Amino acid sequence: MKKIELYDTTLRDGAQAEEVNFSVEDKIRIALKLDELKIDYLEGGWPGSNPKDFQFFKEIKDYHLKHVRVVAFGSTHHPRKTPETDEIFQSLLQAKTEVVTIFGKSWTIHVKEALKTTLEHNLEIIENSVRYLKGHVSKVIYDAEHFFDGFKEDPEYALETLKRALKAGAECLCLCDTNGGTLPHEIREIIQRVKDVLGEKAPLGIHAHNDSECAVANSLEAVRLGAIQVQGTINGIGERCGNANLCSIIPNLVLKMGYDVSAKDVLFKLTEVSRYVFEIANLPHPARLPFVGRSAFAHKGGVHVSAVLKSPRTYEHLDPALVGNVRRVLVSELSGRSNILYKAKELGIELDTESALVNKIVEEIKKLEAEGYEFEAAEASLELLIYKLMGEPKQYFELLTYKVFDQKQLLDSSQAEATVLVRVPPGVGEVEHTAALGNGPVNALDNALRKALVRFYPQIREMELEDYKVRVLPGLPGTSSKVRVFILSKSKDKRWGTVGVSTDILEASCQALIDSYTYKLYLDKKKRS
Amino acid sequence: MKKIELYDTTLRDGAQAEEVNFSVEDKIRIALKLDELKIDYLEGGWPGSNPKDFQFFKEIKDYHLKHVRVVAFGSTHHPRKTPETDEIFQSLLQAKTEVVTIFGKSWTIHVKEALKTTLEHNLEIIENSVRYLKGHVSKVIYDAEHFFDGFKEDPEYALETLKRALKAGAECLCLCDTNGGTLPHEIREIIQRVKDVLGEKAPLGIHAHNDSECAVANSLEAVRLGAIQVQGTINGIGERCGNANLCSIIPNLVLKMGYDVSAKDVLFKLTEVSRYVFEIANLPHPARLPFVGRSAFAHKGGVHVSAVLKSPRTYEHLDPALVGNVRRVLVSELSGRSNILYKAKELGIELDTESALVNKIVEEIKKLEAEGYEFEAAEASLELLIYKLMGEPKQYFELLTYKVFDQKQLLDSSQAEATVLVRVPPGVGEVEHTAALGNGPVNALDNALRKALVRFYPQIREMELEDYKVRVLPGLPGTSSKVRVFILSKSKDKRWGTVGVSTDILEASCQALIDSYTYKLYLDKKKRS
Repeated sequence: MKKIELYDTTLRDGAQAEEVNFSVEDKIRIALKLDELKIDYLEGGWPGSNPKDFQFFKEIKDYHLKHVRVVAFGSTHHPRKTPETDEIFQSLLQAKTEVVTIFGKSWTIHVKEALKTTLEHNLEIIENSVRYLKGHVSKVIYDAEHFFDGFKEDPEYALETLKRALKAGAECLCLCDTNGGTLPHEIREIIQRVKDVLGEKAPLGIHAHNDSECAVANSLEAVRLGAIQVQGTINGIGERCGNANLCSIIPNLVLKMGYDVSAKDVLFKLTEVSRYVFEIANLPHPARLPFVGRSAFAHKGGVHVSAVLKSPRTYEHLDPALVGNVRRVLVSELSGRSNILYKAKELGIELDTESALVNKIVEEIKKLEAEGYEFEAAEASLELLIYKLMGEPKQYFELLTYKVFDQKQLLDSSQAEATVLVRVPPGVGEVEHTAALGNGPVNALDNALRKALVRFYPQIREMELEDYKVRVLPGLPGTSSKVRVFILSKSKDKRWGTVGVSTDILEASCQALIDSYTYKLYLDKKKRS
Repeated sequence: MKKIELYDTTLRDGAQAEEVNFSVEDKIRIALKLDELKIDYLEGGWPGSNPKDFQFFKEIKDYHLKHVRVVAFGSTHHPRKTPETDEIFQSLLQAKTEVVTIFGKSWTIHVKEALKTTLEHNLEIIENSVRYLKGHVSKVIYDAEHFFDGFKEDPEYALETLKRALKAGAECLCLCDTNGGTLPHEIREIIQRVKDVLGEKAPLGIHAHNDSECAVANSLEAVRLGAIQVQGTINGIGERCGNANLCSIIPNLVLKMGYDVSAKDVLFKLTEVSRYVFEIANLPHPARLPFVGRSAFAHKGGVHVSAVLKSPRTYEHLDPALVGNVRRVLVSELSGRSNILYKAKELGIELDTESALVNKIVEEIKKLEAEGYEFEAAEASLELLIYKLMGEPKQYFELLTYKVFDQKQLLDSSQAEATVLVRVPPGVGEVEHTAALGNGPVNALDNALRKALVRFYPQIREMELEDYKVRVLPGLPGTSSKVRVFILSKSKDKRWGTVGVSTDILEASCQALIDSYTYKLYLDKKKRS
């Protein structure tokens, strides 16, 4: 089993993604998490480019990293300076990392137009830069920027840049598809020609971008051709369309191609790491991400479900537990008894396989789905519904009435106000009548309901609504349509989805809100008992 | 230039994605849009599986499709029935399409465990099913389900299924990676062995899933090995991690690999089609989608920006205009000009290429898009906006105030009431103050507005609101989120889309309603003049 090095650039190239902005604290937390995943190299930033990156290199030294080696990133020295006089280049050493990566120009148009120097001088710059660093740090990785585009333009020159970096002592020559336009068959042809010139044993790496939606395939091709290092980011974030996605590359290398990577012992952490990084980056985690997404092992149709339950490989390319993900059986209009039994078991509810109750639940779900409900993502509403049909309803409060008022005058903003009347506990308890404003009618209703409940259940403060979605259902024309509201809520250690349906968006929202607050109170009660 | 057929299954395999649920009307609109993109085959659904799909096949016949051929999808006949006695199989003919696709089992474990029949009987089922269909429709495509997994388990058997389908007259043998676990190098090895047995000219197709994040690369490999048909979906939606993404495959085939596909003449519509389909599916359009995403040609860093402006290919793998996308450069005032000029021309508005007005329009659209507006499907709002910025606003009435009241008592239905104050013509005219009920607050507002306007403009009765969609925008948490409302309206011979954005769903709806009614009045005025 050949060993492949994993090199993560989430904190550098990943941070160049639109809408991503890591604080120093974010970077530290991600670094510690990637250490748990046994990533080999972690590119922390470009110390010469901004003070935040420099601060990261300073602070990370206070942590004991078990596996990962932190890497400072920068470019070859300035064409009108030397390694000694170029301050930005010098800052690479001030980061005090054992490993440094620098990129250099492989493409003649970039040498002429960006560096504004001669082709020969660029070769000297590469050689000088690598050699100087080799005198100060233990390992130098050379990123050949735009290597594939440069090769297509002038193969001789692109190859010469690699020879110079190698001659000066670079331990790895990482071939970069900076613009992301290269296709897998071109990767094969070009890397083969590189090996013809530099030899079978040339220490190559691959750094791919996803502009052609081939970054993962390109990385795997390079490994098959002998590359020893793969650079990428968690979930593939990065400039434009992103970088090669390590969360797909790692399981492909380990589980399908039989390579050895350090992360293979902790592969079951992959899904957790993937979600953690996006949580820190404040990005929604795309449901259909391969291997780690919420939908990656989700089965909808009844035929698929019964096949998967008998023999998972009939509709799964691998066991989700290997990457820390879970199989999800979606309860939908296509589902039957087997879906419900599976789901109940997952929720820790004991149901007798043969009981009439299972049929009753299936019938009720079908009826509600015909009305427009969907329980695929609203598992909390489903669980509350099952308890209700079992004759053990969870009910901690009763909403007696709500009134919502919204108005707008010509050029002013609109104004929304809600009042609610809530009884706790239901049927017999005390009545709270309160009111709240909001930036829209749904928000006003939510604020009023929360305000009323907090008086009785202060733990409501521990939860928040993370996402709110509205789907207009087909059937009725225009604005008289039914809507389905989906709410995702979270507390410290748990997320849950709830659903509501009505022609009135406030009524639909109210159902989903009541389920959401009820579920929080139910979780607390279960924890205490 | 070899011709490659494009086969879209957005309406069938795409509809199996979690959270996707197309109405018949949605399906019709997507079909018409894919016809504009000159997709060759459109898989409309499985007529035997549900009445909605059957309805689609019935209704689509009323439309004149210029290019695309509609395909009915189903499976081989039931093991305990014949083509004549299997009702679900017979429903394929009732869909009355010229082309039919059926899938059959290639993998021995599926034959034994799912079909519960013998290996030999499965071969007969495949042959009988294809031969029967060939007697009734002009073209039969055979989808070899789980072909690659089946081949790995028992190559002889998998190949035999293909031979039988071919012998029975199938025009295309589409090799399916149903579980999405196959890697590009395996695709190469297996297709090569298929060709060794069936011959170089075997009419192969490819149907890939993205569970290993290699669906696009796998599809391109298959084409390089001689496949003549590629199956996929718009934006890669589909079960689990999705299908092969046609929006990446098409530009790779045309712009990079030099193949001929019908869509190449209208490639500039690709971005529009991609966004349109997700707007209909009510899914957010991921910014980093290759080729068509909002970030696909977005440049963040200053160095990148100036390099790109001088010589775009330094940081772009191709010209975004080729796929109808735009470069997004923060410092550039020029980005988007060509788009606006193109759009204005399409709407019949004469704009001077060099005028400052074009810049003003571009700036205003950028500002509104940053606030969450989207004009891809809301062309009526865009047209009204352009006229406004040209100093020729279209305004036939003024909404001075609205008030909406919504309340619910414990077990009663909710009640919604709205009042509006409208002045016609704006600024100087008569004021109408009226009120209406509705089955929800948006509907009440709509009813009141329509009631007020009909008094002055009876032709409002000729129009209706056909569709109403709400999208929650990222940014603010939970119920305080901004929402975008999209309304599709229609009169006898025309459909138009309008948009509104606000944290208050009533205000957002009101903007879209005002634009919708205004556009109707504008159309009438234009017709009369």
